[in-house]
Amino acid sequence: MTASPVREIGVGLVSVGWMGRLHSRAYRSVPFVYPELGLRPRLVQAADTAEAGRSYATDVLGYESAVADYREVLANPDVDVVSICAPNFLHAEVGVAAARAGKHIWIEKPAGRGAHETAAIRDAVVDAGVQSAVGFNYRQPPAIQRARQLIGEGALGRITNVRGRFFGGFSADPQSPRAWRFVRETSGSGVLGDLMGHLVDLVHFLLGPIGSVTASTGTFITERPGLAGTPDEGRMLPVENDDYANMLLRFDDSALAAGALGTLDASWLAVGPKAEYAIEVFGTEGSLRWDFERLNELELAIRRPGESLGYTRLLADETFPEFARFQPGSGTSMGYDDLKTIEAKKFLLAVAGQPSDTSTIHDGLASAQVLTAAEESAASGQWVETPVVPGHTGHVR
Amino acid sequence: MTASPVREIGVGLVSVGWMGRLHSRAYRSVPFVYPELGLRPRLVQAADTAEAGRSYATDVLGYESAVADYREVLANPDVDVVSICAPNFLHAEVGVAAARAGKHIWIEKPAGRGAHETAAIRDAVVDAGVQSAVGFNYRQPPAIQRARQLIGEGALGRITNVRGRFFGGFSADPQSPRAWRFVRETSGSGVLGDLMGHLVDLVHFLLGPIGSVTASTGTFITERPGLAGTPDEGRMLPVENDDYANMLLRFDDSALAAGALGTLDASWLAVGPKAEYAIEVFGTEGSLRWDFERLNELELAIRRPGESLGYTRLLADETFPEFARFQPGSGTSMGYDDLKTIEAKKFLLAVAGQPSDTSTIHDGLASAQVLTAAEESAASGQWVETPVVPGHTGHVR
Amino acid sequence: MTASPVREIGVGLVSVGWMGRLHSRAYRSVPFVYPELGLRPRLVQAADTAEAGRSYATDVLGYESAVADYREVLANPDVDVVSICAPNFLHAEVGVAAARAGKHIWIEKPAGRGAHETAAIRDAVVDAGVQSAVGFNYRQPPAIQRARQLIGEGALGRITNVRGRFFGGFSADPQSPRAWRFVRETSGSGVLGDLMGHLVDLVHFLLGPIGSVTASTGTFITERPGLAGTPDEGRMLPVENDDYANMLLRFDDSALAAGALGTLDASWLAVGPKAEYAIEVFGTEGSLRWDFERLNELELAIRRPGESLGYTRLLADETFPEFARFQPGSGTSMGYDDLKTIEAKKFLLAVAGQPSDTSTIHDGLASAQVLTAAEESAASGQWVETPVVPGHTGHVR
Amino acid sequence: MTASPVREIGVGLVSVGWMGRLHSRAYRSVPFVYPELGLRPRLVQAADTAEAGRSYATDVLGYESAVADYREVLANPDVDVVSICAPNFLHAEVGVAAARAGKHIWIEKPAGRGAHETAAIRDAVVDAGVQSAVGFNYRQPPAIQRARQLIGEGALGRITNVRGRFFGGFSADPQSPRAWRFVRETSGSGVLGDLMGHLVDLVHFLLGPIGSVTASTGTFITERPGLAGTPDEGRMLPVENDDYANMLLRFDDSALAAGALGTLDASWLAVGPKAEYAIEVFGTEGSLRWDFERLNELELAIRRPGESLGYTRLLADETFPEFARFQPGSGTSMGYDDLKTIEAKKFLLAVAGQPSDTSTIHDGLASAQVLTAAEESAASGQWVETPVVPGHTGHVR
Repeated sequence: MTASPVREIGVGLVSVGWMGRLHSRAYRSVPFVYPELGLRPRLVQAADTAEAGRSYATDVLGYESAVADYREVLANPDVDVVSICAPNFLHAEVGVAAARAGKHIWIEKPAGRGAHETAAIRDAVVDAGVQSAVGFNYRQPPAIQRARQLIGEGALGRITNVRGRFFGGFSADPQSPRAWRFVRETSGSGVLGDLMGHLVDLVHFLLGPIGSVTASTGTFITERPGLAGTPDEGRMLPVENDDYANMLLRFDDSALAAGALGTLDASWLAVGPKAEYAIEVFGTEGSLRWDFERLNELELAIRRPGESLGYTRLLADETFPEFARFQPGSGTSMGYDDLKTIEAKKFLLAVAGQPSDTSTIHDGLASAQVLTAAEESAASGQWVETPVVPGHTGHVR
Repeated sequence: MTASPVREIGVGLVSVGWMGRLHSRAYRSVPFVYPELGLRPRLVQAADTAEAGRSYATDVLGYESAVADYREVLANPDVDVVSICAPNFLHAEVGVAAARAGKHIWIEKPAGRGAHETAAIRDAVVDAGVQSAVGFNYRQPPAIQRARQLIGEGALGRITNVRGRFFGGFSADPQSPRAWRFVRETSGSGVLGDLMGHLVDLVHFLLGPIGSVTASTGTFITERPGLAGTPDEGRMLPVENDDYANMLLRFDDSALAAGALGTLDASWLAVGPKAEYAIEVFGTEGSLRWDFERLNELELAIRRPGESLGYTRLLADETFPEFARFQPGSGTSMGYDDLKTIEAKKFLLAVAGQPSDTSTIHDGLASAQVLTAAEESAASGQWVETPVVPGHTGHVR
Repeated sequence: MTASPVREIGVGLVSVGWMGRLHSRAYRSVPFVYPELGLRPRLVQAADTAEAGRSYATDVLGYESAVADYREVLANPDVDVVSICAPNFLHAEVGVAAARAGKHIWIEKPAGRGAHETAAIRDAVVDAGVQSAVGFNYRQPPAIQRARQLIGEGALGRITNVRGRFFGGFSADPQSPRAWRFVRETSGSGVLGDLMGHLVDLVHFLLGPIGSVTASTGTFITERPGLAGTPDEGRMLPVENDDYANMLLRFDDSALAAGALGTLDASWLAVGPKAEYAIEVFGTEGSLRWDFERLNELELAIRRPGESLGYTRLLADETFPEFARFQPGSGTSMGYDDLKTIEAKKFLLAVAGQPSDTSTIHDGLASAQVLTAAEESAASGQWVETPVVPGHTGHVR
Repeated sequence: MTASPVREIGVGLVSVGWMGRLHSRAYRSVPFVYPELGLRPRLVQAADTAEAGRSYATDVLGYESAVADYREVLANPDVDVVSICAPNFLHAEVGVAAARAGKHIWIEKPAGRGAHETAAIRDAVVDAGVQSAVGFNYRQPPAIQRARQLIGEGALGRITNVRGRFFGGFSADPQSPRAWRFVRETSGSGVLGDLMGHLVDLVHFLLGPIGSVTASTGTFITERPGLAGTPDEGRMLPVENDDYANMLLRFDDSALAAGALGTLDASWLAVGPKAEYAIEVFGTEGSLRWDFERLNELELAIRRPGESLGYTRLLADETFPEFARFQPGSGTSMGYDDLKTIEAKKFLLAVAGQPSDTSTIHDGLASAQVLTAAEESAASGQWVETPVVPGHTGHVR
């Protein structure tokens, strides 16, 4: 590998929770995993309204300073890129402001509460000419990147249908309190904007833009206890959005999978699955399956003349993109955090002006538009079309 | 067990193919597996237009005689029950005639080409006061019957959603000829009427009547070679019906799973699955999964306070209905043919005037109506309601 | 297929328990599954000391008559073959007497209590010139027969090692009474003679004769309640044989797997497995795995240049021996009972003087010798050699 | 958590390969993952004979300096601990020297080539009064630590038997060159000292000291090409040690599993498994299984009165030790590298004089003694006893 010139990139962080920690860890890992790229993130400043968050940022995560108001980070001339890990309802506000301040943004998803907010961020990014990345981490597993290659090479033949389920159990307990995610004002839609948004992006990444959908949504736990330590403690409050959603889809004509059909499900109250974020793709010559709970595995079946057909369980190996960067041999597991390192690398490459296949705010908007279409469809019972977003990085023909 | 009085039941068979063989084997097994029920099928007469079928019926299957014209069977006074295993397009004709001749009928599915034909059979059965059974064999595995019990007892809590896929590969080869199943006149719809019909019935059996659906269908192999040995040999002919179908569903208010949502897929051109006829049911307290490829297994997850949650792989054991009739201990596999023995027993019990939970032509009609609604929906893009069929045996509250 | 001339074969049965029922069902199935072979078993006479067994034999199993004393069956001139399904401690007595009476024998395993008794049966069979079969049913699954083919064709390269475990849970409950199987007089060794005997034969079948072993055995449930309804009821009695056994093995030089090594385990008190009777075979070019709990599946990994390596889960299909006789398509399950039908067919073919790959009493002796060697080794701590048995049908080079 | 006072610990590294990188990454992660422990490793100096290794150490891994001669590291007063990641044949030399220099050592395994060398390191460590850790990373997965808890709490009842297999494929290609691992002088035994050593330690960790073994070993690829770029290039050279090994074992009376039996296999030429490092533990009340290829999963079966029994697939969750440090929710995967972070934390805790359950050189010796006994047994055919090592941390009663 020829080494690129070293480039220091000043990092700002907005909100120091688990995701903020994860972004920070990813930045720190990039020069370790990809030394020849010359990317040298410098953790400049973090913002958090809580003192505990600020001291964690400086003492543990390694930021040079921490402040209460994120606007200070956006105004900091040493900051080149901003990781936006605040709660969903602040994404648009912070994202737009960061872009206008000339900062490149890595924004967790959903980028906004619905397509409208996401479009606002997109507009700000385009206007400012900054780079953007959206935290669609399910694009990053080597097994998924290998799947995309196989699909692109035609190994599955012509794609006929896709079947995806993103089933989590993290909201399954009816006694878990009514946090911000259950309130429309702070979260927008429920599992639709959360897990289904990830799933839609994964479909885009593997198979190309979805053209139209018909959908339904449900709310099965209709009220939850108020948050302890707030005035709502001790009473039940309504859940304002969906905890289950599904859809049928057709691909856009520009998609690699044009003509194919599919079904998608998402639930955050499944009792059994933990993070069964899974997808199956079928074509005329073969099929493949992947499940986040076993992120290092890809099941692949390809028809071969004269041979019995079945799924082969492939463990990520050196032929899977990125894998050899992390582990010396097949069978040794990468972890979730490694996916964020890959994501950070792609973002930083883009920031450094080098070729990169990072997801962008355009992909965030593409996903958000499908979700908005799904909401409309769930209300109307009709199929709803979703226009293709210029600049998306989905899999086209 | 108290033994019932022995009752001889004369059996007629229409069409001696694989399914006719399977019915015959099942009749023969009933007194062996359920001796105390006193059911003694006597294989009286088979009909097949081909000489080879007739000689096979007498020489191998054990019928006393065989004829070319099925009407002779219907007219035979020694015949009490008729197994209708002819191609789909003859089901209605034979079924109606058999009922009118006062014969109880065991009819393979789909009972008719669409709801209209099935209703005709239903009307004939009701008018004649005969018993009926439809070959919904996926109701019969002990694991499925155990699943139904668990759901009925509330082990999963309130049902939230169902996810079903019936993915077969038997039509995946584009060089397999355009047999009757690909022609609308002889088959009606394609995979919709075939695998999806089974899946819909399984949903009814486990969770109760479907109330409305929105669906889409696709035809991915659009032409196939003409059958060898016919005038069509050597040229490509159009496939006239669907090879993939999916739907979103809502349950009827009378259903056990009223309020729940779901997604169903069916394909007969999947490359990878062989007979992945699978269903997953989710509720507020747990979930379960079953796959025909491993018919002796049930995966079950139930929330327990203070314990880690996960799926338990249960092999059918003596607590699973019917299992102990067939195998002496858990881990020893029942086979597909055993499911037909259970089905035959239920049918014969009904014929003998004893309590039976056999599926009936009413269930056949219930399934057919959902499929007809799905076809309408696939054409219109709308949700279509499906009225509840009186007399169905689906799972109600 | 060219049909063979029909040959009626008179069947006698000794002991009408579950295994006797299974043999009877298998005889009845042979002409149904293999009609062209012309094999027509006629169920002539069964022997059982209990009246219930006798009436079950005539009323349910279909024997023409039933008697209390098995010697009547042996003296019956209409009886050509005898199925010996009595408890283990009677096998040798009945087997020797049957052979001396000129009857072909199908004997359940272990054929005798140890190599000494088994040799006596072998000698009687050889002296009388009759055919023999031993109930090594784990040879019969199509997946195992396919595995044997693959190994024989060299698909795995040179065999390096085998790993087998036969883990059942049927004696895991310490409150299950001290039945005959726990008593040395009536059973001989414990799990060694039972499950390990099956496993050893399976190794012979796939890989060839074992040449030497070192072994250990354990008894973990050391006493059990006396049988209800006997004078022992209400008190604890010692378990007299092993409930766990293991061994290391080397193959004989004549074996296909000469030079290979291996480890075998057997337990009948495993809590978790039900009938996890499993084997893994490794070679320089690939490996395969099979588990009786999923008898229709074979996992196969073969190195291919330039391709990622992993196990392919193969469901039995039409290329697996026997499968297409039972099921029309891959993914549809055969059951355990079908294995006995295959076993019966092979036995009856041999009886009819046709080529047959049935297991024989020579195989029973080969397995028994390994078990006797294992018992010696468990006592002495030494490796013990096991001479090759003339006439065995194991897999040789 | 109460924070401990911050303590800087100077780190030296001997040999900058993949394992050296992994140690370095682990040191860097400790303050990030366990901030309250006050452990602050400072990467002081690395030694490598190759310039590329030295520059990688300073430029990528973050060491302050790098030298060619490891003795400089041992002499460096800023270095408190030394990570010994050199090839196996240097472990003893470096380990002894480091201890004598008063450095705490974290040594990769096998600590020495056989029990003799390992005892020398142990003696040096004890004489110097320094802390030691051995790289038995298979102790670290949360699922294994949870398994140890369950076993210790008696959840499985009395342990009856263990079954372990460590099957890798990294030496399966006969064209892979004869590297140091195939030469007795540089490697000692082959897979026995490598994978089997890990497996033996895992058995010790879960179940306690092994008391005696009988074993066999094989060499199936007997020669390999000489290393390119050396005088041996272009000719075949003999493989001098084992590529497959197995053993039967009995536990020492002091072990938690006293009285239990077991079988262990190890291979580094398996074609199919990649890193199938797996163990199954059986007891009178239940059993469990774990496989490194799915390191976040534990399969557990516990008998419960009145319930069907089966294996539950548990994904590591917050009740599994360490898991919540790394991931916020069950279903999200930890990776292999995280295991080394746990290992580093335990070592550094011991160095800091705090309570720690790190593995030590005593455990290294305990494992080595079993391997030496296995080699003796493979030569003699006898069972060989292995004395218990004082100070080991295996699971005792």
